[in-house]
Amino acid sequence: MAKLFVVGIGPGDYEQMTLKAINTINNCDVIVGYTVYCEIIKPYFSDKKFISSGMRQEKERCMTALNFAQNQNTAVICSGDAGVYAMAGLIIELSDNFDNVDINIIPGVTAALSGGAVLGAPLGHDFAVISLSDLLTPYSVIQNRIKLASQADFIICIYNPSSKNRSDYLKKACDIMLKYKKEDTVCGIVKNIGRCNEFKTIITLSELKNYSADMFTTIFVGNSKTYLKNGFMVTPRGYIV
Amino acid sequence: MAKLFVVGIGPGDYEQMTLKAINTINNCDVIVGYTVYCEIIKPYFSDKKFISSGMRQEKERCMTALNFAQNQNTAVICSGDAGVYAMAGLIIELSDNFDNVDINIIPGVTAALSGGAVLGAPLGHDFAVISLSDLLTPYSVIQNRIKLASQADFIICIYNPSSKNRSDYLKKACDIMLKYKKEDTVCGIVKNIGRCNEFKTIITLSELKNYSADMFTTIFVGNSKTYLKNGFMVTPRGYIV
Repeated sequence: MAKLFVVGIGPGDYEQMTLKAINTINNCDVIVGYTVYCEIIKPYFSDKKFISSGMRQEKERCMTALNFAQNQNTAVICSGDAGVYAMAGLIIELSDNFDNVDINIIPGVTAALSGGAVLGAPLGHDFAVISLSDLLTPYSVIQNRIKLASQADFIICIYNPSSKNRSDYLKKACDIMLKYKKEDTVCGIVKNIGRCNEFKTIITLSELKNYSADMFTTIFVGNSKTYLKNGFMVTPRGYIV
Repeated sequence: MAKLFVVGIGPGDYEQMTLKAINTINNCDVIVGYTVYCEIIKPYFSDKKFISSGMRQEKERCMTALNFAQNQNTAVICSGDAGVYAMAGLIIELSDNFDNVDINIIPGVTAALSGGAVLGAPLGHDFAVISLSDLLTPYSVIQNRIKLASQADFIICIYNPSSKNRSDYLKKACDIMLKYKKEDTVCGIVKNIGRCNEFKTIITLSELKNYSADMFTTIFVGNSKTYLKNGFMVTPRGYIV
């Protein structure tokens, strides 16, 4: 029985892959993934067969992987983790006619963690992860989650803050958050995590409202206790210092 | 200038460490950590000096690390990620009189991701991570977060579900969740992730209410779309299959 591995490759640099992710890819014959992620890891696995495809080709990509996995050990690579807004779920959902494929999920460092480490320790307490992409989720559901997560005083980590067709979604999310979180709430922005042009900045929630993010950006909105210290964004766990 | 690294070592097995975490520890002279985590990684870094201490010694442990880091490259190890309910924040908070210590955070695979991978793909959509430990957080805050996260239809990942002094907290959390989530909501339980006695099971939210968890357990409560397929817990992103 051939195996299919859904592998989280972390933010992008080889060093931030787990040893298990590296070993898994080395033991596979075929690597399937979004073009950008394939290009990132190709130099480290140059003897492998890569099958890459573009954005919004997720379903076709998973079917390709499931088909290859009937005969060859196959890896589907995902940026960050294998399961967080990634391909693990879709692979399982599409696996109905592939009883002979053994599915395995290999976790990786998602942007909430890799971006958090760049900023310091923003996720030191309870947090919510929310994607602003309404491609597959009703916008009203997203807005309601932003509202309730703010009311709960969660640290909020925002994935997919912007794209061409929804350039004002981050601004709208800030409007909601500003009803429950203070204007000077500490917010961290990280872009191109673990890549050569990595960028970070720490601003306030009222400044975030006018920030122009792109799709490679992850945003951290602090809770009421989050503060800035020596350039680091820190949310205390509650230890008395 | 010596360096202090706060390193997330992942769930426990060597293979689930990132290459960066491994390289970092190899480049340090002193490794500081909670006794259990030190014992787990000692076999792989047997030439290092380990300084271990027990539970609730977090502040002392961080001070020890900051002191060592004045002269030697030092790693503070954390289970899972370095920042999620871990030591990165406390190290930064305590760093006031250590201007000569360069602090670096190395992220790792937190239990939400490693446990999620064991179960399938529970975190395929927006989620909240909540600790039930009220050692450092008022219980009312925790209860309010459970309530609002349920109202928002987040997948909820519960850390520290139980301990000696709060054996009924998971039951109480379920009572709150059951007001907003259905009785048959799919819930995943993972214990001793990545260790020799790893255990998983998938049950309903009404069954979770009577489940006896321990402190090595991570719990995943699905959203309204989460379902069970071929033994996997899956939360669809929304792709039409």
